[in-house]
Amino acid sequence: MNITELTGLTGDTICAVSTPAGRGGIAVIRVSGPEALDIVQRRWQGKPLAEMTSHTVHLGHLVDTKGDMLDEAVLTVFKAPNSFTGEDVVELACHGSTWIQQQVVQTLIDAGCRHAAAGEFTRRAFANGRMDLSQAEAVADVIEAQSRAAHHVAMNQMRGRYSDELKKLRDKLLHFTALIELELDFSEEDVTFADRSEVTALAREIHTLISRLADSYSDGNAIRNGLPVAIVGQTNAGKSTLLNALLRDNRALVSDIHGTTRDTIEDTVFMGGTLFRFIDTAGIRQSSDTVERMGIERTWQAIDKANVVLWVVDVTSADTSMAHDILNRCEGKALIAILNKTDLDDDVAARSELNDILPEGTQVVAISAKSESDIESLRNLIVETASLPDVDSDAVIVTNARHYQALTHARDAIARAIDGLDSGLSGDLLGQDIRECLHWLGEITGEITTDAILGEIFTHFCVGK
Amino acid sequence: MNITELTGLTGDTICAVSTPAGRGGIAVIRVSGPEALDIVQRRWQGKPLAEMTSHTVHLGHLVDTKGDMLDEAVLTVFKAPNSFTGEDVVELACHGSTWIQQQVVQTLIDAGCRHAAAGEFTRRAFANGRMDLSQAEAVADVIEAQSRAAHHVAMNQMRGRYSDELKKLRDKLLHFTALIELELDFSEEDVTFADRSEVTALAREIHTLISRLADSYSDGNAIRNGLPVAIVGQTNAGKSTLLNALLRDNRALVSDIHGTTRDTIEDTVFMGGTLFRFIDTAGIRQSSDTVERMGIERTWQAIDKANVVLWVVDVTSADTSMAHDILNRCEGKALIAILNKTDLDDDVAARSELNDILPEGTQVVAISAKSESDIESLRNLIVETASLPDVDSDAVIVTNARHYQALTHARDAIARAIDGLDSGLSGDLLGQDIRECLHWLGEITGEITTDAILGEIFTHFCVGK
Repeated sequence: MNITELTGLTGDTICAVSTPAGRGGIAVIRVSGPEALDIVQRRWQGKPLAEMTSHTVHLGHLVDTKGDMLDEAVLTVFKAPNSFTGEDVVELACHGSTWIQQQVVQTLIDAGCRHAAAGEFTRRAFANGRMDLSQAEAVADVIEAQSRAAHHVAMNQMRGRYSDELKKLRDKLLHFTALIELELDFSEEDVTFADRSEVTALAREIHTLISRLADSYSDGNAIRNGLPVAIVGQTNAGKSTLLNALLRDNRALVSDIHGTTRDTIEDTVFMGGTLFRFIDTAGIRQSSDTVERMGIERTWQAIDKANVVLWVVDVTSADTSMAHDILNRCEGKALIAILNKTDLDDDVAARSELNDILPEGTQVVAISAKSESDIESLRNLIVETASLPDVDSDAVIVTNARHYQALTHARDAIARAIDGLDSGLSGDLLGQDIRECLHWLGEITGEITTDAILGEIFTHFCVGK
Repeated sequence: MNITELTGLTGDTICAVSTPAGRGGIAVIRVSGPEALDIVQRRWQGKPLAEMTSHTVHLGHLVDTKGDMLDEAVLTVFKAPNSFTGEDVVELACHGSTWIQQQVVQTLIDAGCRHAAAGEFTRRAFANGRMDLSQAEAVADVIEAQSRAAHHVAMNQMRGRYSDELKKLRDKLLHFTALIELELDFSEEDVTFADRSEVTALAREIHTLISRLADSYSDGNAIRNGLPVAIVGQTNAGKSTLLNALLRDNRALVSDIHGTTRDTIEDTVFMGGTLFRFIDTAGIRQSSDTVERMGIERTWQAIDKANVVLWVVDVTSADTSMAHDILNRCEGKALIAILNKTDLDDDVAARSELNDILPEGTQVVAISAKSESDIESLRNLIVETASLPDVDSDAVIVTNARHYQALTHARDAIARAIDGLDSGLSGDLLGQDIRECLHWLGEITGEITTDAILGEIFTHFCVGK
């Protein structure tokens, strides 16, 4: 399949503002394509672009269709293939008024450019072999990154560390195929494969490598979307008030009515440089209401997925009747027990009762979510308690749901191949599993892809990148 | 006076994000100062900055204090004095995530930069003689410009057309001084000045030139702040409803109570590419309420300053008792008579009555501000009726209130000199007026200025410019 064909490029020249939207000191308009130099030349008064050396900057004037000056601008020229897209690229740094930005883009369009679609510059970089698809996707992740961890992971991916791992896997799979084909070549002579144990060892190694990548997604997802922290407890324990206090926002509906929160409500906040995703859940009680019971079922699932569980107990009622169910479900999880509503009542009795039923070593804090007292110490405790992914390691971490899905498919395929080897399956049937495994890895790097997948990926980019 | 001293520069190296705030494809961080190359070098992995030719771009890595990679970046170097500020300048184009932008600025500060104050790059350009003060001010105007007219005027000013005019004036004033001093040199010999008529002609020419500049401010102000359109009429004629309809916004408080609007309320909107400033005024009636009478006084002033007056008449009451006062005040103004509330009543009788009292040729339109019918044709009529400034002419237009003030002072000084010449005042007294005139022109270009004035001017800049 031809990648350029797939990406739907027509060889035209595109332009867009690449800097953030709005007014600033300067703005940069990027032009890329075979006619980039010619088109900009039509609106440029200064040194002729054809005479410029690649990677040099020049002061001059941008003019409109009528030749009236639009702006003084600094022009940078990057000649193909040594540019971001691999095509001729011209970058125009002009004054950052929104009016000028619009006018410059407009006059470039009048001169023969097309306005770039979202992510089209990066898509061209991919189409021209400047990066593979996982690297192109990482460009968007780098721009989205809001924390050191997310940035570190995205940057590693953009720089090709992940691609290198996938390439190694691919080489191993091709080696596997070669070994299998060797067997097939001799099959008519009824010679069975010399050493199946070598092949099996290779398959197991591949399985381990793919598994490690797929498993890293739980860390990767936490880095990208926030470490999940579930807020659970009985109805009316003040979970939603606590969520609002932790988010410093009125995200969740709060009332005195038991069972106000029926669905899980979540939002993210940075604490200690790490992104946390707090999940407010339906209060746990025996309920005959069908909808409420569905909500409670989701609460159990939220506990399962959580990195930290905050169990909120109302100190005024100190009702711990559901404690057993909750504690059972939390087994093995990082748990913080919270005595809430200290503004209303003294907590001595409740704390003592709670201590009796809590697993040893469980952290207990007394707070008032409503008056926001001791929320800061709770925040610190959550940061200490959470098991943060080790981002400083150089291990590749998968953050992308599409990649995770492809990796699980690839893992299934190699697992089938291992089963086949164990049960003495013939080489051609094994080859089918290996080809499928290669296919899924190729989807990640974009060697095998469809226009629909590419469209979906680049739609989420900002225009100008 | 030493300009560098005045501007309070300490010769340190500054940095700031120069592109608009927020997330985008790329962001540019600008570094300027004597240590720009050295400081960036401490955070740069790539070709050494010292080996780079001015005006070239280089791909490399930005690293943090610990040497961990922050971003792949494109670095452009501008060596003094051939840069915007006149100092060594390094521009770093990095990925446009807000996180990266913060981190890069932080690491540059750790490496020895100071974060730039608002407008500090432009202030340095001024201090280093790259532009005069009126040009520096125009940089901010160029960035603020929202229309072709505002952009054209600001761009002319930034490119020094205004400075050239001021320089010519200054040369004429110095020539004037030379002639006067010639007289003084011979004063002991009691020789009166050879040809006072030459001096007088020169003074009148200077007066005419300064007057033309000062008078252009009414156009300049309209271009920058919007062409003033006053909405006047009796109480409860629907003026505020009309303002909201014209602005497509609920800017003004509307009620059925007569006299709801007491102060003038104004806001701007673009119509036909021109910025208009609509001024809703207090309804005109005989009133004993002191506050309301003050409001009515402002209405009269708004008429005086308006480029177009919209006189709103309630078609249901068709009360034109104050018509005479209003029409008198509008004499010589572009006037549009508006029959409002056509949704409530037929307008035949009122229109006929109105036609009897209106000056011949006055435009009359029937509308309903409330149901927004015929507002579009009113808009078109306003654009046709307004006398738009001729921005395409190459005449310099003053848009800056500070300059206008200085020009009126300069005009007063030269007028006094002319009076002095007429009344045979001695040369040394004339010289005083000329020096004052020079002083005020020097305030515009920044040859004569104070730190307080500079501070005030650059505070209104965005950071990064």
